[in-house]
Amino acid sequence: MLKVAVLGAGRIGQIHAANVAANARAELIVVADPVEAAASSTALKLNCEYSTDPYEAIGRSDIDAVVIGTPTDTHVPLTLAALAVGKAVLCEKPLDLDQSKANAAIVEIEKSGKPFMLAFNRRFDPSASEIKRAIEAGEVGDVRQVVITSRDPSPPPADYIQRSGGIFRDMLIHDFDMARWLLGEDPVEVFAVGNCLVDANISSLGDFDTTMVILRTASGKQCHINTCRHASYGHDQRIEVFGSAGMLQNGHIRPHTVHRFTDGTTDAQAPLLHFFLERYKQAYELELDAFLRSVESGTDMPVNANDGRKALALAEAALRSIETRAGVAVD
Amino acid sequence: MLKVAVLGAGRIGQIHAANVAANARAELIVVADPVEAAASSTALKLNCEYSTDPYEAIGRSDIDAVVIGTPTDTHVPLTLAALAVGKAVLCEKPLDLDQSKANAAIVEIEKSGKPFMLAFNRRFDPSASEIKRAIEAGEVGDVRQVVITSRDPSPPPADYIQRSGGIFRDMLIHDFDMARWLLGEDPVEVFAVGNCLVDANISSLGDFDTTMVILRTASGKQCHINTCRHASYGHDQRIEVFGSAGMLQNGHIRPHTVHRFTDGTTDAQAPLLHFFLERYKQAYELELDAFLRSVESGTDMPVNANDGRKALALAEAALRSIETRAGVAVD
Amino acid sequence: MLKVAVLGAGRIGQIHAANVAANARAELIVVADPVEAAASSTALKLNCEYSTDPYEAIGRSDIDAVVIGTPTDTHVPLTLAALAVGKAVLCEKPLDLDQSKANAAIVEIEKSGKPFMLAFNRRFDPSASEIKRAIEAGEVGDVRQVVITSRDPSPPPADYIQRSGGIFRDMLIHDFDMARWLLGEDPVEVFAVGNCLVDANISSLGDFDTTMVILRTASGKQCHINTCRHASYGHDQRIEVFGSAGMLQNGHIRPHTVHRFTDGTTDAQAPLLHFFLERYKQAYELELDAFLRSVESGTDMPVNANDGRKALALAEAALRSIETRAGVAVD
Amino acid sequence: MLKVAVLGAGRIGQIHAANVAANARAELIVVADPVEAAASSTALKLNCEYSTDPYEAIGRSDIDAVVIGTPTDTHVPLTLAALAVGKAVLCEKPLDLDQSKANAAIVEIEKSGKPFMLAFNRRFDPSASEIKRAIEAGEVGDVRQVVITSRDPSPPPADYIQRSGGIFRDMLIHDFDMARWLLGEDPVEVFAVGNCLVDANISSLGDFDTTMVILRTASGKQCHINTCRHASYGHDQRIEVFGSAGMLQNGHIRPHTVHRFTDGTTDAQAPLLHFFLERYKQAYELELDAFLRSVESGTDMPVNANDGRKALALAEAALRSIETRAGVAVD
Repeated sequence: MLKVAVLGAGRIGQIHAANVAANARAELIVVADPVEAAASSTALKLNCEYSTDPYEAIGRSDIDAVVIGTPTDTHVPLTLAALAVGKAVLCEKPLDLDQSKANAAIVEIEKSGKPFMLAFNRRFDPSASEIKRAIEAGEVGDVRQVVITSRDPSPPPADYIQRSGGIFRDMLIHDFDMARWLLGEDPVEVFAVGNCLVDANISSLGDFDTTMVILRTASGKQCHINTCRHASYGHDQRIEVFGSAGMLQNGHIRPHTVHRFTDGTTDAQAPLLHFFLERYKQAYELELDAFLRSVESGTDMPVNANDGRKALALAEAALRSIETRAGVAVD
Repeated sequence: MLKVAVLGAGRIGQIHAANVAANARAELIVVADPVEAAASSTALKLNCEYSTDPYEAIGRSDIDAVVIGTPTDTHVPLTLAALAVGKAVLCEKPLDLDQSKANAAIVEIEKSGKPFMLAFNRRFDPSASEIKRAIEAGEVGDVRQVVITSRDPSPPPADYIQRSGGIFRDMLIHDFDMARWLLGEDPVEVFAVGNCLVDANISSLGDFDTTMVILRTASGKQCHINTCRHASYGHDQRIEVFGSAGMLQNGHIRPHTVHRFTDGTTDAQAPLLHFFLERYKQAYELELDAFLRSVESGTDMPVNANDGRKALALAEAALRSIETRAGVAVD
Repeated sequence: MLKVAVLGAGRIGQIHAANVAANARAELIVVADPVEAAASSTALKLNCEYSTDPYEAIGRSDIDAVVIGTPTDTHVPLTLAALAVGKAVLCEKPLDLDQSKANAAIVEIEKSGKPFMLAFNRRFDPSASEIKRAIEAGEVGDVRQVVITSRDPSPPPADYIQRSGGIFRDMLIHDFDMARWLLGEDPVEVFAVGNCLVDANISSLGDFDTTMVILRTASGKQCHINTCRHASYGHDQRIEVFGSAGMLQNGHIRPHTVHRFTDGTTDAQAPLLHFFLERYKQAYELELDAFLRSVESGTDMPVNANDGRKALALAEAALRSIETRAGVAVD
Repeated sequence: MLKVAVLGAGRIGQIHAANVAANARAELIVVADPVEAAASSTALKLNCEYSTDPYEAIGRSDIDAVVIGTPTDTHVPLTLAALAVGKAVLCEKPLDLDQSKANAAIVEIEKSGKPFMLAFNRRFDPSASEIKRAIEAGEVGDVRQVVITSRDPSPPPADYIQRSGGIFRDMLIHDFDMARWLLGEDPVEVFAVGNCLVDANISSLGDFDTTMVILRTASGKQCHINTCRHASYGHDQRIEVFGSAGMLQNGHIRPHTVHRFTDGTTDAQAPLLHFFLERYKQAYELELDAFLRSVESGTDMPVNANDGRKALALAEAALRSIETRAGVAVD
């Protein structure tokens, strides 16, 4: 069993820590967070040690792997510190909001030659991975179009938006990664529109809450992404892959499967799972498991640092497209 | 083209007349109904002759086939009169509410050797006939269980119920025919329960509004039928066939396909089509076409008089089962 | 009852003629087509007169309304001839493939002050009109995004494509009209990508077979359209309207509703209706009825010549967007 | 936190032990199983003690509650031993296959006055409990009919069937409990048919593999249950509740939500979850949590010993109905 330290005991750190504790391949050794109350309560619940110093946790000789769920600006230094002492790293996305800092870090990460995985959790959603598997098995022939719908149940608070890097770097980054993965080819051109239809305050922060994007690859494959910071019916997460031999779509996830027939309506179902932590609960578990399997077996990580760089480059291109009202080439 | 007389210009007669007029195999020559206003207005609309004497219409030498949509007590005499002068007959079910009269008529019908079809329209519903086709093609292997749900949107008026012969002869007669057809084997035992949960007045008429039935065939196939005279969400008509290699089900029919996602509900659809004439519109058209094709080609009718007798025998057995609280054997 | 002449007895003319014959508001007087065999066989089947001269049919004093289903290049002269003698006109889209000719005709049409309707049949699909009704009733609040999927079952022959004016004028013209109608606001900017992923020959004709478009309105509403000339699973026609209070989607249309459960798959359904004439059968009937009702009542036509002009302008803008790889403003 | 002993480290015992370990209300202290390897490996994995003597575990003074997942013939003695020393007990169903022994035990259990819950896990399936909640909230008005479909993916081995008590006591016992719970009223009459359509060997063991049942309550509510030991498409578990104001149904559970559209089929989904441990994974977790909450709060158990007795009585009545081919009254 791999011995694991989880860095960060906030919302996402707690998820990772609980998943490590429940995973048969791993033993949760320590949870580290400068906020002692957070670290200690998580440790108490999961029956492990805690630390207020992430670097101390990284440095322990009994640790094989580190899961990083700390604030974004600490991702790069913690990652590099862990790789430097030979730990395998699973790091939350993004590496850094600044593309040049992220790129510099990627060079360091690749130079280290140590196992590093970036946490694009949505790839591990059971329906997403089944769609990927079916594409690779040729079930829909040649992919022609990918359509991604990604709507959040409600916008985050203003201070989150301010620190987020904007909707393209914060929210669509997942969709850009999904697009690349499902297209099986890197987009060469991006066109984007963005508006504020949910909350005018978001506009005053220089950001958008409603966007549509088109991506095009060199061979002519097309991808559309539509997003919104608010959907009254829950967290709407859809993928459609259309190819020469058919189409694949995922379905919705709800808290139960009850269908209602009344005198005004039929087959009505419950609202979609509201929050990404619920919607992607299984994806987080499977993401961790995929990371641990790669560490165990020494095989390539399913998502690497370069995937982060590419998704960020699409976000940057989308922003330039909005400024220029034109398609923007991506190298 | 076959020259056709339609007898009866009431609700069902008008449906048949319009379908004859629109069918490329047939020419609508005359509509006959003792109620002159009904006959003449239908004829005007469909651009054909009319008569107030059904027997006159039957006797016309230019008529090849007769469609009978008159009140139940005239079905037998009109049928026998038409067969006697060599016309093909499509007759609304039931032949007669009295089983011995119906049986006597069937003997005459079969003796005539002329084309006769009983109008079990539901067999011609596109989903029902696709399910039958799939069974016969072996797509679900050996049939084990059939489950039929048959709920009306609202109960008929008391005077209709009084003349109806009761829920088993009036409403379940369709389901018994469907059961025999899908099982591919005649039931040998019937068990039924009946209650009045919709309207206590129906009980005072000696009838039921809510029933459950089990049928069993000699080889052990099982069929369940559940019915109710009232369903708040529309005319609920479901068929399920479960076999050794799989299951077939039909879906619901609605006026449109819109799905609604709001803040309290997702994927909600419209109420089911409310009335049997809307729900089985296509079935009535296809039923007529199947009749005309059999007349044209001289092949066996898809539903014959004996099918009517067998369905009625199951209704009688169900009534005796309720009286005896026991399974009732069917010959 | 309105007395109607149908011009054109080809594929679409026959549809219109049969619908006129079956419509209770109308009497089909004459079908006109220079191809005598087509005109006469349609007339024989529908029990009306025929003519080989559309202008003769237009000129008859007993005709109230004219339905034009002839080749595109005759739409304008026949329309203007009919309006000139006071007939109401329902004309197949497009008025003309050339935008300036179409615009000139629209001026004449509007000057005539006579009832004119352009046949954007999809607006009359029961699900599309229910979605429009629900939007106007405020069921989804303020519209934010519209997503239209429009995939044909298989590409038309090369000679059709050559005469078609290209995928944007021929196929997306319907989707542009749907977008305008559902957005409730005219787009001010268009971005489009087009590729040939189905058939390289289409590329050699200077056309595309696979496209993605984004439209944006002045108030920031967004619309995405994706189209393809080929979908292996049938004629895929989807509409999604996402608003501040919810989402509306239409469902698929199939020949029957059977669901199959086997050992490898569950809930599998039949391929979608393959051809637009089947898929939009009801829409053609309802379109005609809406036209006849407007003629009868003297109210505004549900689709007018200007709607045709606006949709064509979006098609032109999409073509320029592909050339310039930039958003194109629409006046 | 409640300190819990789990008795039995077989298939179901391991499920309970893992759920106790993961539950925030409980601490897993010890797993007891006479098969030392089973006990020790489970304990190792879940980081708790183990014992080869269930009675020793029961007797420990640091234990508050006992979860019994041992072979059926030990349920009664272990339950009574635990209650005798004041432990709360969650016991797998059935208490005993013999109705008189079960009844005698129930008297003892009730006399003890200690918290006892029988593990009818299906009540805790999120869709089942939502249906129950909606019934109680009056969302479908007065319940008229309940329809339960319960088909296993494949029959158990012959030696399991021999020890099982037969399909009614082993498999339908769950459906009888569900029926009572959803009807909200005890059935007063049972009619059943049983056949062997899956495997003739089951017949030679005096058992059935395919059954249909009708239950009727004193107020005339009706319930149908259909079951089969084999369904090629997975573990088919459906509930339908039809009332005066509408209908509730649960949906299927699959490993992912992918829908496939190919050239022969549309909207096809994956086979249903195959095994009851997967299908009811969440139900087992929620069942345990409901038990622990009742222990904590001292409120009535959601399922008690009497519920077990009533379900068993329906199974006995169904068997007599098959023998007598008649309805059998239940006291």
